[in-house]
Amino acid sequence: MTDYTLYYWPAPFRGQFVRAVLSYAGCSWEEAGFDATSIQRALKPSGQLIPHMGPPVLTDHRQGVHLSQMPAILAYLGDKYRLMTDDPVLKAMCHKVVADANDVLYEMTRYNGAQFWTDTDWEAFRPRLQRWMEIFEETGLRNGLTAGSGFVLGTESPSLADLVTATLWGTMTDRMAPLRQMLDTDAPAIAGLSDRIMALPSQAELCKRSEALYGDVWCGGQIEASLRAVL
Amino acid sequence: MTDYTLYYWPAPFRGQFVRAVLSYAGCSWEEAGFDATSIQRALKPSGQLIPHMGPPVLTDHRQGVHLSQMPAILAYLGDKYRLMTDDPVLKAMCHKVVADANDVLYEMTRYNGAQFWTDTDWEAFRPRLQRWMEIFEETGLRNGLTAGSGFVLGTESPSLADLVTATLWGTMTDRMAPLRQMLDTDAPAIAGLSDRIMALPSQAELCKRSEALYGDVWCGGQIEASLRAVL
Repeated sequence: MTDYTLYYWPAPFRGQFVRAVLSYAGCSWEEAGFDATSIQRALKPSGQLIPHMGPPVLTDHRQGVHLSQMPAILAYLGDKYRLMTDDPVLKAMCHKVVADANDVLYEMTRYNGAQFWTDTDWEAFRPRLQRWMEIFEETGLRNGLTAGSGFVLGTESPSLADLVTATLWGTMTDRMAPLRQMLDTDAPAIAGLSDRIMALPSQAELCKRSEALYGDVWCGGQIEASLRAVL
Repeated sequence: MTDYTLYYWPAPFRGQFVRAVLSYAGCSWEEAGFDATSIQRALKPSGQLIPHMGPPVLTDHRQGVHLSQMPAILAYLGDKYRLMTDDPVLKAMCHKVVADANDVLYEMTRYNGAQFWTDTDWEAFRPRLQRWMEIFEETGLRNGLTAGSGFVLGTESPSLADLVTATLWGTMTDRMAPLRQMLDTDAPAIAGLSDRIMALPSQAELCKRSEALYGDVWCGGQIEASLRAVL
C-alpha cells in the first residue's frame, strides 16, 4: 500500500511543495491525476473527501485522513517528519516562509489566473517580485544562512523552510529562465540554497521526473502563456 | 510593559485575527498605528523589523522577536496559548481553517485591492462566496459542531479555528450586513458559532472597541467602497 495519494494538477506548482516534502521524507505516494482532482474540486463540499476550494488534497492512508490547503498539509508533514524545529519562534519563521511562498504563487499567477499578464502589468509588478526575492534573502541572512549554519534557512539538516524556498525559487527560475538572473542578483544566497537543495538526490529525482511528466510547464494554462509572453 | 505591539492598519481585517487571539488569551498589546505600520511596510527588507511584504507584524516583547504573516503569527500564538490540540490531524485541520480564512480575505478584496468590484464581477463571485461558506459549514458538521461538542470547530474550549472562523464570518457579516442572510442560509451552524464566539466577553469587548476606533470599516479603501456599491 502506498503511504499517500495526492490530488493535484500535472504541474510543478502549489502541489509540488507537497511532492518535495514527501520525496525528501522518503514516502511513497500516488498521483490521483487530473480527472480525479478535477472531479473532487467540482463536487459540493458535502461530497468532497475534505471540503476544499482547490487542490492540493492529500490522503494519508495510514491515518485514514484527507488534508487540504498547502500550508496546512506542509505543517502536518513538517511536524510528522520532524522538518521543523521545536523552537516556537523558529517554527513561526518556518510558517512565515511557507505563507510568503504561497503569496508569491498567488501573485505570479495573478491570483490563480484571475487576470492575465500584460507587458504594462508585468513591468509594474517586477519591483514587487524583486522585493519578494529580497524578503527571502534577508530572512536567510538574518538567520545565519551565509554564516555556515542557518537556523531558519540553510539549516544543517534541510528544514521545511529550505524545501519550500528551493521549490519556489528553484522551480520558478528553472521553468522561467529569464527570472534566474533576477534571483542571482537580488537573492544570491537564496539562489545558492535553492541549487543545493535541488541537488539533493530526492529533489533531483523529483525534478527529473516532473520534467519528464509535465515538460516545461510551471503553473500551466493561459496564465502561464501570458507570463511567458511578457518574459 | 505591554506584552505585544501590533503593526496593522486601523481596520478589523487581516490583523483583527491577531487581535482576536490576543484578546482571548488575555494579553496586553499596543497598536503601532497607521504611520508606523506604513513606514515599516515601505522600508527595504533589510531595514524592516522582520522582512515582510505587508502587515500584520507582531512584536513579542518578552521574547524580543518580530513575526509576520497572519497564518504564522496565529500558529505561534495558537501554540503558545494552547489554542490548538496536540493531535496532528486536528492541528492540520486548524491550519486549514486559517488558510481558508486567509483565502477568503484575498478573494473578498479581489487580492488586496488589485481590482475593484463591479456588479458583473460580484454576481460571478457570489456562488464562490457561498461555496466558501459551505466549506466552513461542512468542515464544522463533519467534525461534530452541531453534535454538542466539536473537535475542530465548536470545541468545548474555543480553539484557534473557532476564533478565526468567528472573526472572519462574524466581522464580515457585521460590517457588510447584506451578507448575513447568505451566511444564515448557507452556513447556519457557522453563523451560530460565530455569534457564540463573538459574545464571549473578550471578543465582545474587542468588537465594541474596534467599532469605536474604526467605525463600520472592514477592509477599507477603494476596494471596500466598491464592495459596498455592489452590495
